[in-house]
Parts: sequence; C-alpha cells; structure tokens
Amino acid sequence: MEKFNLKEKFSLFNEYWTPKIVGELNGQYVKLAKVKGEMVWHKHDEEDELFLIIKGSLTIKLRDKDVELTEGEIFIVPKGVEHSPIAKDEVHLLLFEPKSTSHTGNVKSHLTKENIEWI
Amino acid sequence: MEKFNLKEKFSLFNEYWTPKIVGELNGQYVKLAKVKGEMVWHKHDEEDELFLIIKGSLTIKLRDKDVELTEGEIFIVPKGVEHSPIAKDEVHLLLFEPKSTSHTGNVKSHLTKENIEWI
Repeated sequence: MEKFNLKEKFSLFNEYWTPKIVGELNGQYVKLAKVKGEMVWHKHDEEDELFLIIKGSLTIKLRDKDVELTEGEIFIVPKGVEHSPIAKDEVHLLLFEPKSTSHTGNVKSHLTKENIEWI
Repeated sequence: MEKFNLKEKFSLFNEYWTPKIVGELNGQYVKLAKVKGEMVWHKHDEEDELFLIIKGSLTIKLRDKDVELTEGEIFIVPKGVEHSPIAKDEVHLLLFEPKSTSHTGNVKSHLTKENIEWI
C-alpha cells in the first residue's frame, strides 16, 4: 500500500513495446509503456483497453479512422476493435486493462511479451 | 469511441467532491473530481480505488499513516481500508473504480452524490 510516481517508474526502463505493471485493482492492471514505431494490428476479444498519454503524441490507427492523441488525452479501445498504435517519436503511456490482457491481443508477433513484469 | 482531453473535461465543472464519469471499460468507470477540504472517513468493502493526481497536492489519511500525493502520483486504496482524502488547496483527480462504487463508500453524508453524471 505505497504510492508511486509516474516519472520515477518511467525512469526504470527503456525498452519499447514492453509494458510494465505498476499497480493492480479490481482484477485490472495499471501498466506503463514506452513506445516508438509501429505496433502490429491486433484486437482484444474480451477486454477494453485504456490509453492515457503521459508524454508525446500517439496515433491509434483504427480500420475506419486515425485517432491522434497527445499529452493528457485518453482513448478507450473497445473490445473486439482492431487497432495499431504508431509513435513517430517516443511516447510514454499509461494503460489500464484486465489482468488477462495480452498487449498484442489476438496476434502473436515478435513484439509479444509473454511475461510482463512488475516494476 | 472518441478520445477525450483531461483539461477540457476539468473545465466543464467546478463543484467539489462531485465526481464526473468520463469513461467506462471492463465494468469500471474513469471519473474526474475536483476536491478541496476534507472528505468523510469511509471505506469501500468490495472495491479497490485508484487516485491519480492531475493537479495539486492531496493527503489521503489512513488509520495508520498519511499518504502525501502530488501531480503524477498514484495511490490505490485497497478494498476495506478506511481513508479520508484532504486537500488544502484545489486538487484535480482521476479515479478508476468499479461502476458499483459510491464515492463515500459505506458512509452516507452530505457529500454523498446519488447520481453521478457523465460529462
């Protein structure tokens, strides 16, 4: 039952597309990720996924539109909706999603991390 | 399926201790609140509650310690733990909690809002 500071947590890792768990509540994880470049298209069949932009600008490509996000903006990808996040420059993200969520959803790729660690 | 901006959402209301719903995912609400002063002691028997400080400094009093939070800091109050948030000056908060959560938990007070609105 300790507080934590987002900046401090982001200083603890540098790998892209490797979400880290920082908190847990009600069967959900709070995760932090640094991303740069393009993520594979994927969807989460049973889970909604929240993106909060802490630093930088992120495009979330959907099949019918692009959602442009900058610091202090939130987007919730509903379950079943295919999406592909793209970051031209480094972006720091907070994610909120069920403990069961794999970050590449239904797709196995070289970006898929099997064991997401706590920091 | 639209993004939203935290600053814009906070500009839409001024009442203290009156959380507004801004998003919903996996049976949880994302809420924003402006607070100033002291909240009644309460607990949530079945729900963990996440506080993310967007602006200002908040003290969350627990029975055995005070947790001092400032911008960019997160604290998760586990279910069943009595707490009393106190803000000397205005604080802007993001909350994640189950849809079933009442913001004053097990306590009915003049601060209890029965109908929390979407903004």
